[in-house]
Amino acid sequence: MPLSFTVTHRDTDTAARCGLLETPHGTVQTPAFMPVGTYGAVKGMRAEDLEQLGAEIILGNAYHLSERPGAEQIAALGGLHGFMGWERAILTDSGGYQVFSLSDRCAIDDDGVTFQSTLDGSTRRFTPESVIDIQALLGSDIAMVLDQCVASPADRDTAAAAVRRTQDWAVRSRTVADRLPGGLFGIVQGSIYADLRADHAEQLRALDFDGYAIGGLAVGEDKDATWTAMEAAAAELPADKPRYVMGMGTPADLVEGVARGIDLFDCVMPTRHARNGMAFTREGRIAIKNQVYADDQRPLDADCRCPTCRRHSRAYLRHLQARRDMNASIYLTWHNLFHYLDSMRGIRHAIASARFADFRRAAAARLADSSP
Amino acid sequence: MPLSFTVTHRDTDTAARCGLLETPHGTVQTPAFMPVGTYGAVKGMRAEDLEQLGAEIILGNAYHLSERPGAEQIAALGGLHGFMGWERAILTDSGGYQVFSLSDRCAIDDDGVTFQSTLDGSTRRFTPESVIDIQALLGSDIAMVLDQCVASPADRDTAAAAVRRTQDWAVRSRTVADRLPGGLFGIVQGSIYADLRADHAEQLRALDFDGYAIGGLAVGEDKDATWTAMEAAAAELPADKPRYVMGMGTPADLVEGVARGIDLFDCVMPTRHARNGMAFTREGRIAIKNQVYADDQRPLDADCRCPTCRRHSRAYLRHLQARRDMNASIYLTWHNLFHYLDSMRGIRHAIASARFADFRRAAAARLADSSP
Repeated sequence: MPLSFTVTHRDTDTAARCGLLETPHGTVQTPAFMPVGTYGAVKGMRAEDLEQLGAEIILGNAYHLSERPGAEQIAALGGLHGFMGWERAILTDSGGYQVFSLSDRCAIDDDGVTFQSTLDGSTRRFTPESVIDIQALLGSDIAMVLDQCVASPADRDTAAAAVRRTQDWAVRSRTVADRLPGGLFGIVQGSIYADLRADHAEQLRALDFDGYAIGGLAVGEDKDATWTAMEAAAAELPADKPRYVMGMGTPADLVEGVARGIDLFDCVMPTRHARNGMAFTREGRIAIKNQVYADDQRPLDADCRCPTCRRHSRAYLRHLQARRDMNASIYLTWHNLFHYLDSMRGIRHAIASARFADFRRAAAARLADSSP
Repeated sequence: MPLSFTVTHRDTDTAARCGLLETPHGTVQTPAFMPVGTYGAVKGMRAEDLEQLGAEIILGNAYHLSERPGAEQIAALGGLHGFMGWERAILTDSGGYQVFSLSDRCAIDDDGVTFQSTLDGSTRRFTPESVIDIQALLGSDIAMVLDQCVASPADRDTAAAAVRRTQDWAVRSRTVADRLPGGLFGIVQGSIYADLRADHAEQLRALDFDGYAIGGLAVGEDKDATWTAMEAAAAELPADKPRYVMGMGTPADLVEGVARGIDLFDCVMPTRHARNGMAFTREGRIAIKNQVYADDQRPLDADCRCPTCRRHSRAYLRHLQARRDMNASIYLTWHNLFHYLDSMRGIRHAIASARFADFRRAAAARLADSSP
């Protein structure tokens, strides 16, 4: 078994839990946030910076990497770990989301999906088996099945059809899982329909994946619908396997996701927002370019112990951002990722010390104005 | 005396020497290369990255910083050291070069220079005294006098007139040097004319500055003319004060400058070239975007101990550069600055161990194809 998951602490009031996820490249303490390195790099952070930050797992994208530089190329260069000089764990998204959201034209059939490359317009095809093979070449510690994503809002018939196809593909993916060096996660679809989510989770569970993702959330639906769908799916997933909500979310979302039993998160928000001059703090968000910070000698967040906050004022960061200096992006990326990872440390500590309910209440009160 | 300079080793065959330059913010081992942080940041490197790299002194620019965020503003925020979170030494250029090279219109008179701000087109004026005051507000460890720079090539009369004015301004600057928290360097002008260079150096020497810069070189003249002018100036400068060639140069130039008795260098080349995908190596330069590196598993430089070379292949860096990922700039900036600083360590070690002639010969042979 290339992955093993042990729940070490359970919250008594919610579905929150702490765990240890052992991968071929080290152990991940959960709940965990995974910085996003779509193209084999987390923008603004070197591999050793990510280590210093305490990241135990990062995300790569099989679709993007298969376009450039190509999965065979990466395999020849030591797999994704060797290629990017990262010795800790990597989860790769299958690219299903990208095929359906980025491609101008994509034609889906029962066997797979044909689409135009966003790179050069050439015709490409993904099948459940081919994306497993790509992820095997990348050497992912955790691979994701190919799923069919639907736009939001989706009507019930569309969502149900996507569930059926995603399930068919999951069955095929499961049979070739032994091609992978690491684990394979199934993906629950079903849009905002709680019964579809629950049914699909139950069907996937029968396939005995190494873990389960909940896809197609936080794509524009209202927040109540997100939680309802998430709860419906999580309730049917096995308690002894990790659960991952894809592409989510704000710091407040992470706390609420954890309360619903989620163990893994990823989101471009901390890194992308950093490059746009937005910093996350315990008191909400700061758009650092604002003139109001020109004289502000305080750090981004008074309680933050990140390298940026230990050393630099808002006034300095504001100056760099106003100059469009790439160092503004670097300093804010450090801060935002530290903030996310530190929030997860706080969550884990709260659960382990039986204080998660208090932690959650305090976070909700503090972050009420900054979410989503 | 806010600066003190001690020559610790002298080469027997050339004018090369090692020294210790003590500043209000620490000791600088010379010969030294100063990374350029025009706007209060070395692009691509955090302050703590520069420390880890071993930089003991960096450069700021009084002109640019006086435009944004303003010298008074920086003074209010703890001076340039406090503002940018850098506790080691800082040398600031006066901005003379920028006024004459960047401004669309500038009108020089005996008292000073009136120019249009490159920022907003407003009219600004620099005098020898005002640029000292700006650098006092910045808290520079080493300030530079205002000088008149002439375009290259300059005829002899133009060059001689610029020397006269620069000298008049140097006299005025020297009388207000006690407004500064650190030392003040005079600047030798004289274009490519060896006799003008020698005369000016002698006149400046009489003013007893803390150190002496040689300006207006490496601005397009041919390389022989550079060395002739540099030698003429250096020969008339006092042996017990540091000498600084402004805005120079390639790795080969640094070795040749040291051989002529130069102690301090600065250049945007390692950082700017890094952002354009160019890496310096012991064997010459590499344009990392070149397709030939797509499969190249070697580091940029097989003998380099920088964090980039210890961990990443040319193939990976080529991928990042082709993706226009900012991490390519970061990784190459680390490498190039490490290469420059490590070259200076090598030079110092060679001088101290009486092997500089061999070192120089080997460097010249190795770098013949990559300079200028």
